[in-house]
Amino acid sequence: MLSGRILAAARDEFATHGWAGTTLRAIARSADVDPALIYHYFGSKEGLLDAATTPPQRWLDGVAATWNTAPDELGSALLRLMLSAWADDEIGPVLRAVLLTAAHEESTREKLRRIVEGSLMGVSRLGADDRDRAVRSGLISSQMMGLALMRYVWRVEPIASMTDDELVGAVAPNLQRYVEGELTAEPTSQHVD
Amino acid sequence: MLSGRILAAARDEFATHGWAGTTLRAIARSADVDPALIYHYFGSKEGLLDAATTPPQRWLDGVAATWNTAPDELGSALLRLMLSAWADDEIGPVLRAVLLTAAHEESTREKLRRIVEGSLMGVSRLGADDRDRAVRSGLISSQMMGLALMRYVWRVEPIASMTDDELVGAVAPNLQRYVEGELTAEPTSQHVD
Repeated sequence: MLSGRILAAARDEFATHGWAGTTLRAIARSADVDPALIYHYFGSKEGLLDAATTPPQRWLDGVAATWNTAPDELGSALLRLMLSAWADDEIGPVLRAVLLTAAHEESTREKLRRIVEGSLMGVSRLGADDRDRAVRSGLISSQMMGLALMRYVWRVEPIASMTDDELVGAVAPNLQRYVEGELTAEPTSQHVD
Repeated sequence: MLSGRILAAARDEFATHGWAGTTLRAIARSADVDPALIYHYFGSKEGLLDAATTPPQRWLDGVAATWNTAPDELGSALLRLMLSAWADDEIGPVLRAVLLTAAHEESTREKLRRIVEGSLMGVSRLGADDRDRAVRSGLISSQMMGLALMRYVWRVEPIASMTDDELVGAVAPNLQRYVEGELTAEPTSQHVD
């Protein structure tokens, strides 16, 4: 599909060259289409960026389903959702584009914030109040995004080649602590239980 | 200092536009120096990237000192080292440039791998064998880099405005589990699928 080819090219260009360094001409060349077609499908550079960095509905549905997981299994459920999303041919490139473009471009950074919030804040059982829920949601995201970058973008070994099951064994208990553990340890750096 | 001004400009340009999208001319313009001066100081675009993404010796010394921390305090010691490094006017911009440029540029990705390994692999008490040490090192990095991106680059709230002490209370125990905890949990994933 032409619009799919344009979106794939846009994701690569925005991720590699940032918002300012990307031209519709370069995207059109990379997708092998006429630049006019980009305007036809997406209206503007802004419209194209928005479409290129919006996760498919199918993924949002998967996120919504995860909200029904029992709280004591939420850590591993969230991690498996993340691993399967990055491995997905349709969802993985969108997440990659969001993470890489967010570094350079404020509207994508705002979108990343909304994805973080939308993915996790719906878990209304998370946290004791709104502030606690936002802290836990942010900590969960920090671990999942760092892991995704190491594994799928920077490809740092051995993280890149560990199996999903190995990673779940290693990381899910840490996510689970962010879901339901005590987060305010002794304020002194001297000793951490 | 002229070379410092060139390095600061190079970090911004490489981080924003990537390796391919950055020209020495643009860096010279941003630093307000003659392009010839860049060759004089750094020899080539490669030499400039290398200098711009090499952490100062002072930081490497701090990392080395952390290796002497008692193993049961390593989680909070590593986290406090990371927080102070990002807050440092000299070290923070280098780490930022490494993280952002690594997405686009293979030699910087290789440097990021070496920083990950050099920062953590020196902790010879980490892990039961080389493979276990590399896994633990990678997991610690995944949490610290994800946290650094959320806090300092993407500035996602409330992570961006939490105090260092709050973050240490919330995150250090998770790092501590990667330092010395059991990483091969029961595959509780069975219930989830």
